[in-house]
Amino acid sequence: MRALETSDRELVALMTEAMRLAGAYWTSLDERPSYPSTSGAETARLFDRPWMDEGRGGDVLNDFRAMAEHVRPCTGRFFGYVAGSGEPVGAVGDFLASVLNQNSTSWRSAPAAVTIERAVVGWLADAIGCDGFAGQLCGGGSMANLMALAIARETLSPANEDGARPGVVYASEHVHMSVPKAVALLGLGRSNLRLVPADADFRLRIDALEAAIDSDRRLGKMPLAIVANGGTVATGAVDPLRELADIAAAEGLWLHVDGAFGVPAAMAVPEKFAGLNRANSISLDAHKWLYQPIDCSCLLYRDRDAARKTFSHSGDYVRIFNEDPSETFAFFEESIELTRRFRALKLWMSLQYHGRNAYREAISRDLQHAQRLADAIQALPDLELLAPVPLSAVCFRHRTGNNEAILQRVVARGRVYLSNATIKGDFALRACFVNHRTRPEDVDEIVSEVMAAADEV
Amino acid sequence: MRALETSDRELVALMTEAMRLAGAYWTSLDERPSYPSTSGAETARLFDRPWMDEGRGGDVLNDFRAMAEHVRPCTGRFFGYVAGSGEPVGAVGDFLASVLNQNSTSWRSAPAAVTIERAVVGWLADAIGCDGFAGQLCGGGSMANLMALAIARETLSPANEDGARPGVVYASEHVHMSVPKAVALLGLGRSNLRLVPADADFRLRIDALEAAIDSDRRLGKMPLAIVANGGTVATGAVDPLRELADIAAAEGLWLHVDGAFGVPAAMAVPEKFAGLNRANSISLDAHKWLYQPIDCSCLLYRDRDAARKTFSHSGDYVRIFNEDPSETFAFFEESIELTRRFRALKLWMSLQYHGRNAYREAISRDLQHAQRLADAIQALPDLELLAPVPLSAVCFRHRTGNNEAILQRVVARGRVYLSNATIKGDFALRACFVNHRTRPEDVDEIVSEVMAAADEV
Repeated sequence: MRALETSDRELVALMTEAMRLAGAYWTSLDERPSYPSTSGAETARLFDRPWMDEGRGGDVLNDFRAMAEHVRPCTGRFFGYVAGSGEPVGAVGDFLASVLNQNSTSWRSAPAAVTIERAVVGWLADAIGCDGFAGQLCGGGSMANLMALAIARETLSPANEDGARPGVVYASEHVHMSVPKAVALLGLGRSNLRLVPADADFRLRIDALEAAIDSDRRLGKMPLAIVANGGTVATGAVDPLRELADIAAAEGLWLHVDGAFGVPAAMAVPEKFAGLNRANSISLDAHKWLYQPIDCSCLLYRDRDAARKTFSHSGDYVRIFNEDPSETFAFFEESIELTRRFRALKLWMSLQYHGRNAYREAISRDLQHAQRLADAIQALPDLELLAPVPLSAVCFRHRTGNNEAILQRVVARGRVYLSNATIKGDFALRACFVNHRTRPEDVDEIVSEVMAAADEV
Repeated sequence: MRALETSDRELVALMTEAMRLAGAYWTSLDERPSYPSTSGAETARLFDRPWMDEGRGGDVLNDFRAMAEHVRPCTGRFFGYVAGSGEPVGAVGDFLASVLNQNSTSWRSAPAAVTIERAVVGWLADAIGCDGFAGQLCGGGSMANLMALAIARETLSPANEDGARPGVVYASEHVHMSVPKAVALLGLGRSNLRLVPADADFRLRIDALEAAIDSDRRLGKMPLAIVANGGTVATGAVDPLRELADIAAAEGLWLHVDGAFGVPAAMAVPEKFAGLNRANSISLDAHKWLYQPIDCSCLLYRDRDAARKTFSHSGDYVRIFNEDPSETFAFFEESIELTRRFRALKLWMSLQYHGRNAYREAISRDLQHAQRLADAIQALPDLELLAPVPLSAVCFRHRTGNNEAILQRVVARGRVYLSNATIKGDFALRACFVNHRTRPEDVDEIVSEVMAAADEV
């Protein structure tokens, strides 16, 4: 056998064993602790090793068991952050994407893959009430938000030959950290992000936004874009999209909705996202509330030409000899990425395997889980809800206990995993539901585990 | 069954069928045409469809056959662009990565995955003679180059609060299109990229670089970074790294080596990359010359703190309660990405399955393929080599035929796939070898197919 070649027999053996491990892992999820008992020293002992000259062959799969015991498993009792559940059909789709190994950068380079990605992006746009939007899949919400602001800048305040012109970006004080990161990266100036105060429900205050824009105009600054939260990461608050669209239209600003966490919920509760279809761009993470394996985000935009104007820098060696519009189509002309993974295949498989109704139902169920938890918290005098629950994130605390210590104890107990948030200066426990495996009894364990941890602390 | 749930039986059936399809596809690769006979109308007919309310279950795999017939297959006779071969063990690794569905963003979020990524990045650094470099995996060379220039800017000319300060980036006229794209995105100003003339061997001219820096300094501009080609995409030319490192040191500039295509060859021909370990940052694509499935790139850097200074914008909700340095480690503090796929698993599996010697041998073999093609071209009076062949890209032309027509005919014949390049203003045919499936007889078909196509045109 020549170097790197594998026989059919070897590959079948490897795949069979991998499939067995995958099946056993999925079946075991419910028994696994919600967080592994491990340490930096332990993971280094297991996995910090040199690359040896000789190959190990199929023995490489022997590492899987140790790996599985030192990961955060996607059980139905993991409620930290906004951690999707890695739907297994999507994982099989990811496998086949790597088998086909397409560079989904242009129709010419990957005819089927690019056609499928365009179809899937259309499904997502349609599902959230934004039929007609164009877009692309990308790695994560940070990348989607960065590209959106780059397009906004290029459209409204194109850099001159010498560099970026400062432009002011407005967002609520609860904006995701990817937005200041993008503003800095684009050279807009860290001081040119206005964090606009939010109201008692954690939604951007329209009066404060108007005052901020007005003040900037008077100082000769150039307002550029509004980033609206389509579900803040801490509490799920959705900024007033309709009013923001009105202001963006009146002021000539770009409206981007960062819906990485929340926007898929527009499939189930469209009334909470009224105005969404007036945005210029929208990001949503399929690896969050569409349950897909990481990574799979989506950036939607109304105007494909604006994206092209921002990202088109073609070299000769990708020149396309063709006149047919679908055959000359190239994602790389409207993206930061040139080589692009066939991310659409997992969506193509998982979304069709289950159907649109099942997705709507799963999202509705997550919304119900959050209400169930909120009700349980409000029924217990020792616990206090710290924020409204418009979507599926619930922030609360123990009224008398040390909540930081309670959180560490909850995680160490291993039944449920919660993360934390800062709510009006207070340390909050936080549970978020974006997991198709979660059952009502898992939700009920949150309260019982917090109470048990509080007793122990 | 609740929405989105799948029984163990259903999943085993789905995985079994997916594995069967994968095995059959890999086995069929050698018989497949090097480019599919299809059209935009045909792919739209097959794949442009709505998302239906009801699920299709396991029938979704029925689309795979049509997909496989409308993709560019990774046969050993595909020589276009820089298209890696999608090593099957890596594909199995990608499957298990999606099964575990880790967010490899911090040790806390993914203890095993982050430890494995740090180990694998160390293997790559060591393999190319850059032991001690830190780094991260990312989606592609465009992203790696963008992050490298962002770090350079933040280190040498940090944006003030109001925006980016212009800084000049120097690269050879043969620089990859991702670099002007990054310069524009970072707000450095499109006019602040100097395309320095190259010599007859397509290597950046040191005298011209020195003159350009000198001229900018005299005009009061601020030189910032040199981007060296570690294998230009057209001809594989490696810029004079040692001399560039000297200049960067003397002038206080950042030296980034864009080795997306070529740098893995440092495993086999380290002498061609002398000086590489003096760079500040290096990009290399494992989905190119390390044969991995898309996507898997790597950005290496000497100074982790510089990367942190650029990309650290943490929010409260990812606050880490810990003092242990390996347990507080977070890739998101030094990357554009926050959510990060467990890309390291395919490298972990594939690199260990085959061993380091086998990788070195496969790269050496690709280098030999290129020399074999160059020799065959030079032996035929009708063909002309258009550039030296330092690595594994070969640019040539038919002396009397219409080369553009010949290329289209070669692709239509379906035996081998070539792409094109512009060499000193001339249209060139181009073959690139980064495929572990390619055999000497496949290389020989390039010349026979070009000659046959020339006869037909």
